[in-house]
Amino acid sequence: MKYPSKLIENVVESFSGLPGIGKKSAMRIALHLAGNPEIKSKKFAESLLAMSEHLKTCNECFSYSDSELCNICSNPHRDNFTLCIVESIRDLMAIEETQQYRGKYHVLNGLISPVDGIGPDKLNIHSLVNRINTHKINELIMAIRPCIEGDTTIFYINRQLENTSVKVSLIARGISFGSELEFADEFTLGRSIAERVPYQQNSH
Amino acid sequence: MKYPSKLIENVVESFSGLPGIGKKSAMRIALHLAGNPEIKSKKFAESLLAMSEHLKTCNECFSYSDSELCNICSNPHRDNFTLCIVESIRDLMAIEETQQYRGKYHVLNGLISPVDGIGPDKLNIHSLVNRINTHKINELIMAIRPCIEGDTTIFYINRQLENTSVKVSLIARGISFGSELEFADEFTLGRSIAERVPYQQNSH
Repeated sequence: MKYPSKLIENVVESFSGLPGIGKKSAMRIALHLAGNPEIKSKKFAESLLAMSEHLKTCNECFSYSDSELCNICSNPHRDNFTLCIVESIRDLMAIEETQQYRGKYHVLNGLISPVDGIGPDKLNIHSLVNRINTHKINELIMAIRPCIEGDTTIFYINRQLENTSVKVSLIARGISFGSELEFADEFTLGRSIAERVPYQQNSH
Repeated sequence: MKYPSKLIENVVESFSGLPGIGKKSAMRIALHLAGNPEIKSKKFAESLLAMSEHLKTCNECFSYSDSELCNICSNPHRDNFTLCIVESIRDLMAIEETQQYRGKYHVLNGLISPVDGIGPDKLNIHSLVNRINTHKINELIMAIRPCIEGDTTIFYINRQLENTSVKVSLIARGISFGSELEFADEFTLGRSIAERVPYQQNSH
């Protein structure tokens, strides 16, 4: 009997099952919320319940959505003719966070991986090809992480588009900002030299 | 508009207001829960709602409780005549986690700090003295962190008990397990030498 209250124990258990939260952090959070039950815990619980009951998948891009179309797909100010292809909704959100992209997305929901039994049919690729044809997409940006499964997926999608005029591009691969050359893998370092870009003042 | 769904955005906001959770972690957790809405989010929300609606304060020890008396105060297997005095419920839980203590607790809910305008009247000290007299407490263990406010509080409580026969003890202060002598403060290191204990085999 480690907790003076079963109510607190339940909250600690809920939190300690989440990614990146250990038991000590969970206890700290539960006590923090117990100190502000009326305001914080209630609003918190309501946001979770609303999500668990009403969250949908966007019919166009397969991201999470509040209705048939997500906030991004239904936004008239975004470029309708560019699609950014991502493996997961997490990657979509990371790109949104940069505020550098104003087109739309398409979430594959995984990468082709024969070893794990994931073929193209299990991913949102068929719907992507349909979407490209229906919406007259000009450019496809493959924002897929560099790995064998990623390269296979890009290769496969590109093959499906051979009869279309859509331009396919890849996000730049190279040395990350702030990282050390000596710790970069040979493949990335080699590629960053082979694909070097002209120096421009104020480009940093 | 960084999120494809307002429902997710609300959950991210709820999490990122918690101690020790940044925006990236909050996003990761929200997506984790969105992936298991039925099971996890619902149970989670219910545990939070139950806590916000039903959490009480124990009439005896001032810890959180599900009813008039907390699980510890109402446990007949715990030593009724020893009280461990703690600053906060968080400290109580940390001690419970060690499984080394089988007595009961008294939560002061702070320390005496004239600078911050916290006098003895704002803490659960009057009730402590009453409790000691009513329940014939034998020993008081001051599990208060070493600091000026802590020492002041211990001094004050000890003064209130001059006419009683209760024994007052302090938790041991010294060098923590795994820490380096060179980084210990002079006060702690000096005290750990002055209050050295006889070596016993198998005492580790």
